[in-house]
Amino acid sequence: MIYITRKEHFNAAHKLFNPNWSEEKNATIFGKCANKNWHGHNYDLYVTVKGEINPDTGFVINLKDLGDLIRTDVTEVLDHKNLNIDVEGMNIMPSTENVAIFIWNKLAAKISIMGGTLHGIKLYETENNYVEYFGE
Amino acid sequence: MIYITRKEHFNAAHKLFNPNWSEEKNATIFGKCANKNWHGHNYDLYVTVKGEINPDTGFVINLKDLGDLIRTDVTEVLDHKNLNIDVEGMNIMPSTENVAIFIWNKLAAKISIMGGTLHGIKLYETENNYVEYFGE
Amino acid sequence: MIYITRKEHFNAAHKLFNPNWSEEKNATIFGKCANKNWHGHNYDLYVTVKGEINPDTGFVINLKDLGDLIRTDVTEVLDHKNLNIDVEGMNIMPSTENVAIFIWNKLAAKISIMGGTLHGIKLYETENNYVEYFGE
Amino acid sequence: MIYITRKEHFNAAHKLFNPNWSEEKNATIFGKCANKNWHGHNYDLYVTVKGEINPDTGFVINLKDLGDLIRTDVTEVLDHKNLNIDVEGMNIMPSTENVAIFIWNKLAAKISIMGGTLHGIKLYETENNYVEYFGE
Amino acid sequence: MIYITRKEHFNAAHKLFNPNWSEEKNATIFGKCANKNWHGHNYDLYVTVKGEINPDTGFVINLKDLGDLIRTDVTEVLDHKNLNIDVEGMNIMPSTENVAIFIWNKLAAKISIMGGTLHGIKLYETENNYVEYFGE
Amino acid sequence: MIYITRKEHFNAAHKLFNPNWSEEKNATIFGKCANKNWHGHNYDLYVTVKGEINPDTGFVINLKDLGDLIRTDVTEVLDHKNLNIDVEGMNIMPSTENVAIFIWNKLAAKISIMGGTLHGIKLYETENNYVEYFGE
Repeated sequence: MIYITRKEHFNAAHKLFNPNWSEEKNATIFGKCANKNWHGHNYDLYVTVKGEINPDTGFVINLKDLGDLIRTDVTEVLDHKNLNIDVEGMNIMPSTENVAIFIWNKLAAKISIMGGTLHGIKLYETENNYVEYFGE
Repeated sequence: MIYITRKEHFNAAHKLFNPNWSEEKNATIFGKCANKNWHGHNYDLYVTVKGEINPDTGFVINLKDLGDLIRTDVTEVLDHKNLNIDVEGMNIMPSTENVAIFIWNKLAAKISIMGGTLHGIKLYETENNYVEYFGE
Repeated sequence: MIYITRKEHFNAAHKLFNPNWSEEKNATIFGKCANKNWHGHNYDLYVTVKGEINPDTGFVINLKDLGDLIRTDVTEVLDHKNLNIDVEGMNIMPSTENVAIFIWNKLAAKISIMGGTLHGIKLYETENNYVEYFGE
Repeated sequence: MIYITRKEHFNAAHKLFNPNWSEEKNATIFGKCANKNWHGHNYDLYVTVKGEINPDTGFVINLKDLGDLIRTDVTEVLDHKNLNIDVEGMNIMPSTENVAIFIWNKLAAKISIMGGTLHGIKLYETENNYVEYFGE
Repeated sequence: MIYITRKEHFNAAHKLFNPNWSEEKNATIFGKCANKNWHGHNYDLYVTVKGEINPDTGFVINLKDLGDLIRTDVTEVLDHKNLNIDVEGMNIMPSTENVAIFIWNKLAAKISIMGGTLHGIKLYETENNYVEYFGE
Repeated sequence: MIYITRKEHFNAAHKLFNPNWSEEKNATIFGKCANKNWHGHNYDLYVTVKGEINPDTGFVINLKDLGDLIRTDVTEVLDHKNLNIDVEGMNIMPSTENVAIFIWNKLAAKISIMGGTLHGIKLYETENNYVEYFGE
């Protein structure tokens, strides 16, 4: 069993705002992240796949294929988008935690079909904070 | 003459969109950066000051004072904001080039009063592109 | 279950020196780290908390609260200090390993009160070496 | 139980090429990595050792000794080499996965003799992809 | 006048070897870099263009166009190649210095046609050494 | 004319304290940097040399020789030292500015003898502040 990780990027706008709360409560809980006119981030995404090594290739999974999958199913969906408005299927507060789970759900089944097992999603929102999700 | 640089951060939303152009022309020129619902970045800002060393302190300029100035006059103005909407005095397309010049104009006179000379602004929009401005 | 990590910094002086040993033995075991007049480092600290996502916020833990806790209980205690002399309660050789455990002990109970579970401490002494501690 | 990691570097040439396949199949599977005249990388290697802390030193393992071992047994063997031709004992496709396992096998027994337990090898081939191996 | 920089990557093999010298002299001067079977690097390339800001776009130069030019004229020419053998027109020792000048010569005229002025090439061979060339 | 830069590291303790001032004034001006028991940093040092390319080697200067010079004349002098106490010839407040000039003075003449010209010293005290000195 060996683990391989691919890094990709996307840039997006979002805000953290709970519509069931007053503006005051949103400002108290979310601080500047509640700015009604949005803010944004450069997100760094690390996708880790585990599996056995294929003796013909030396690969757990072909990184070119994994990179293509991440681009078509994740970064083209999220890059230069507003995570609160523009992303089909993301019907949830776009905290880093929820975006990481959204990405897991986009990739896990397709990576299984490619012969690997999705092990983890690591998503940096800034260089000072990141989330990891392992599917359980 | 010696040069000292201070790094600060801010996160913001923006879009690149020329209101004198059609949507098609905006999309052709600005690509995904023209997304009407915004996108955003983690900006890294480097402010470089030059001057003579004060023999009492060993400093060109006190970095704590410089950091305080950058925070009050730049990062509190730009952090978690929408650069097209929220920033007083930024009445211009918020390209990295124009944001760098906006920051220069915010800082140059005040750094002179503190006894240094603003030498340059370096502004990273992503880890793959940055702008430098030297005031002329 | 999801994991969120916050990065903070502190700068400190220390030396590695066992008072039960001769100067020669200290120099043999600790090399330049035994310099009697101290040396120092920029420490990078990563604090990882795990838990369930709060559906009202999308958060495991509010990062602003976590950051405030790390600053009051860890970085204000260690930053610009001499780890052998200045830190109340650190009555032990200030190796990276022991400093990581010291930080764990400062944070674990308070993070539980905030509703999360401290998962791990990762402490970089230089960019070429770091320690991880998971509480057991 | 605590974990300590040491980072080292090496630069090497390699190609990915299966001699049982046609040139066309190699190009299809390995893309530009199959270039017959080689290409190369700056590899970043992280070696993680776990163990109990020695109360006399505060160390799991003396990092100077660990660094010396990695240099004599790994980086002097791999640095500025062609991984397909120059490395005794590496009789396998030099994918990042296989190089990571090769490094594990070079280090695990010797780290046990030094009193620690090799926990993991993390090997970056580029800043955008890395492999982790934990010995099982 | 403002300066904008675009970062790109390529991976390549090379060796440093002067055919007019003996193997011994090559080994003395170039050390491990003279290994006859090649070694390689991940090169990081920074291309800096200067110019006036176009008021319609806020740009010195459209970074998408600049990125396309660097990819077609530089990284597709150098990526996953052997710099001693595979690169048409590079009839010179592939030291970092000479590769930087080769890249300058590939780009300067075309950037002029695009309306900017090539200001500098910065080429990292490893994270510990880089070359800068300003065309004179 | 081309520029080549070599990066090296050292770790050191220091404090900023003017003995002609009261403790209160030192604390006001230098803040936590005045802690009487020292603090410390991981310093990153970039040494830039300019010159013509030697056609026999493709080099401005042999980086191995430059690295050896920096190690013997700078990093062995400063690494794991207390910059206020341990460094012969550094009879000055060890601000980053003054340490950068100290390093320039150690290297400039010897680099001339090696056939290059020292162009600049860039010294990072933390990832958020650095000094540059060009000898005038």
